[in-house]
Amino acid sequence: MSDQLSKRKKLLGPAYRLFYDEPLNIIRGDGVWLYDQENRPFLDMYNNVAHVGHCNPHVVEAIRHQVGILNTHTRYLHDNVLDYADRILKTLPNELDVAMFSCTGTEANELALRIARHCTEGTGLIVTEDAYHGNSHAIAEISTEDNEPEDRSDYVVTVPAPDTYRGLYRGEDAARKYADHVKEAIEELQKRGIKLAAFIIDTIVSSSGVVGAPSGYLKMVAKIIHDAGGLFVADEVQPGFGRTGETFWGFESDAFLPDIVTMGKPMGNGHPLAATIIKRNLVEKFAKKTGYFNTFGGNAVSCAAGMAVMDVIEQDNLQENALSIGKYLKDEIKSLANKYDLIGDVRGKGLFIAIEMISDCDMTPASEAASSIVQQLKKSGVLTNTIGPHSNILKLRPPMIFSRENSDYFLDRFDSVLKKNCANYFNANKN
Amino acid sequence: MSDQLSKRKKLLGPAYRLFYDEPLNIIRGDGVWLYDQENRPFLDMYNNVAHVGHCNPHVVEAIRHQVGILNTHTRYLHDNVLDYADRILKTLPNELDVAMFSCTGTEANELALRIARHCTEGTGLIVTEDAYHGNSHAIAEISTEDNEPEDRSDYVVTVPAPDTYRGLYRGEDAARKYADHVKEAIEELQKRGIKLAAFIIDTIVSSSGVVGAPSGYLKMVAKIIHDAGGLFVADEVQPGFGRTGETFWGFESDAFLPDIVTMGKPMGNGHPLAATIIKRNLVEKFAKKTGYFNTFGGNAVSCAAGMAVMDVIEQDNLQENALSIGKYLKDEIKSLANKYDLIGDVRGKGLFIAIEMISDCDMTPASEAASSIVQQLKKSGVLTNTIGPHSNILKLRPPMIFSRENSDYFLDRFDSVLKKNCANYFNANKN
Repeated sequence: MSDQLSKRKKLLGPAYRLFYDEPLNIIRGDGVWLYDQENRPFLDMYNNVAHVGHCNPHVVEAIRHQVGILNTHTRYLHDNVLDYADRILKTLPNELDVAMFSCTGTEANELALRIARHCTEGTGLIVTEDAYHGNSHAIAEISTEDNEPEDRSDYVVTVPAPDTYRGLYRGEDAARKYADHVKEAIEELQKRGIKLAAFIIDTIVSSSGVVGAPSGYLKMVAKIIHDAGGLFVADEVQPGFGRTGETFWGFESDAFLPDIVTMGKPMGNGHPLAATIIKRNLVEKFAKKTGYFNTFGGNAVSCAAGMAVMDVIEQDNLQENALSIGKYLKDEIKSLANKYDLIGDVRGKGLFIAIEMISDCDMTPASEAASSIVQQLKKSGVLTNTIGPHSNILKLRPPMIFSRENSDYFLDRFDSVLKKNCANYFNANKN
Repeated sequence: MSDQLSKRKKLLGPAYRLFYDEPLNIIRGDGVWLYDQENRPFLDMYNNVAHVGHCNPHVVEAIRHQVGILNTHTRYLHDNVLDYADRILKTLPNELDVAMFSCTGTEANELALRIARHCTEGTGLIVTEDAYHGNSHAIAEISTEDNEPEDRSDYVVTVPAPDTYRGLYRGEDAARKYADHVKEAIEELQKRGIKLAAFIIDTIVSSSGVVGAPSGYLKMVAKIIHDAGGLFVADEVQPGFGRTGETFWGFESDAFLPDIVTMGKPMGNGHPLAATIIKRNLVEKFAKKTGYFNTFGGNAVSCAAGMAVMDVIEQDNLQENALSIGKYLKDEIKSLANKYDLIGDVRGKGLFIAIEMISDCDMTPASEAASSIVQQLKKSGVLTNTIGPHSNILKLRPPMIFSRENSDYFLDRFDSVLKKNCANYFNANKN
């Protein structure tokens, strides 16, 4: 292991990060399980990319089949890209009627912002604090989780993530109050002499640790943005493809229509595949100026992988599974929250659950506890990780085939870990 | 077909482009051959992505094997990414000692420019005219082939592509004279109050139709750029992996050391895989500020595909094949050039050949002829396409397994097409 670590540092350099204090050497995946070099099983509750399970046989077979027949680009005709585009578009409102393919969420968001800027003739972008949207120059700048305000261009203005647990507002009026910050952001851009292009949000507000905006927020923001001449980009890279249980896309939690929807990670179950879905009139404007070509985007193999993922989601009713198992899991975690003060909040939708750890009744973020619990869960055979600006929130985002039995496996181990740690990390005397 | 076309327009929108007046519906690939829905064979002389041949059995098997075992990201340890990084780094000078993986050439160039800008604290970029480096916001801006000077930010300054056929200079001094334009570009950035970050060039200058800089140019430019505190980025997406025959990387045609090398297209033989290779001290500076993570970049399947491509290149001596077959092909095309005035110039290296069409002795670009010849070659079973600012240059870039027999197949058809067209398109009386 140490040899592997030093080799990695030498060959991949210092910018790469590893999970866990003692990193895992994962060599095999099967459904909800990952295995290390000693064949130790780990229940994967973190990796949303393996949406329909690691090495899902139907997806594996689709890739194996197509890769032996043809793998070329979209400058020739091919049914796979058309059939897949049709299938994806059918999951979305009719007005979102054009699909453009790329390889990563970063590329999908890049295209969204390029089109938004072209169509609005603006450059201003409004984004939530502690957001993550990708790793290119333009997208890293709006990935406010990873940069400091002074590192951002003038055209990036942030608004508070609509967090109703730890944030500025809670209760009935929270959605409106948070939406009002978008008005202020528009004014700030005006002050700076910058025309608004778009508002972009991960519709489950994952990186902020919030997991979901208060009902009505997205709709109110869309109206404010539209009134100001901007476009609304719904980044569905994390919540998409049924994960939230109630709806197939995160933005559908509110009754409104985004102008552009981007998707990635779970789309090809690990095969690099992403898309930008967009209203025709916008892409028509863009196409008058320039074309779009992505060498690997929408190739025959990628689309076969994507199609197979859709097959499994539908045939195995995985959206329903996310809803029912997600409810069971969340309810049981809430029971643990009653037992252990360390758990300040349990929230989320479907199989996207956040567990916020606090170290006292003042809701002080229990960052150290969360980190330690992640390491201990790993040792007991469960993979999770922390998120949020204080890294005190456990993020659960298992493959969509997650079962009640899998949930119990986790709950049992989580209970043990909490039992061992609660007294150490929660200061009951502090108020 | 018409149904497929209208479906495509409806589902993918107007920004997508197709090859050929009557687009091809390609459904199968095998080695140097692509087949349409009627099983008509087309000799592929254009698609460099299928570097070791369409559906190369060794690469297909590597993907099929790994996709059934594990396909996850680089936040766990895995030997594939380390073994592959080691293998790629061994093809490069020792000083280029860190490999960072992504999915597309765009992403590889994005990372290169982010690091260059961070390390130099500059933003200024110098790029050749009519270049192509990718499709994101920042990279589209330096893809000067696809935009107009007025669409570029102040920090982008262009220099003429070092074309010694149609360009400003030819003969012995051309390299130096072209390099002097880089000095002017640096002065122009200074005038604008912008600090230089990097010079970036496709080392075979493909999109300009030039196919290769004059000997000494890259080295002279590197010195000028380094003296001004900037970094030299060698974009090897097109020339890399032995295609130019004499060297494994395009930049090796000159004895100099780039600071960053980017690679993509042929790397995974169609599987989305790209890399940014960089000097350790640069990535160390970058890593102090931020990490880098690319969800699909460097995953176990991508690296298995990349490793298999390297196996085939080495085991089948494909760099040598590119050199010997490329020489045969170029020599034979030069013989045709003696026969047909329509061919103004034949240039290139290895299996990257450009044929420039002219319509009179004044070297007027024969754009219409080139376009017509591409369509006629397609009808006769050969796939090529045009490049260059006048679209009058045939670009030949077949899979690296291209044989003498394949060359003769093309030469025979090319001869026939030229015979039919030369008199129509070349005006012998005009001088």
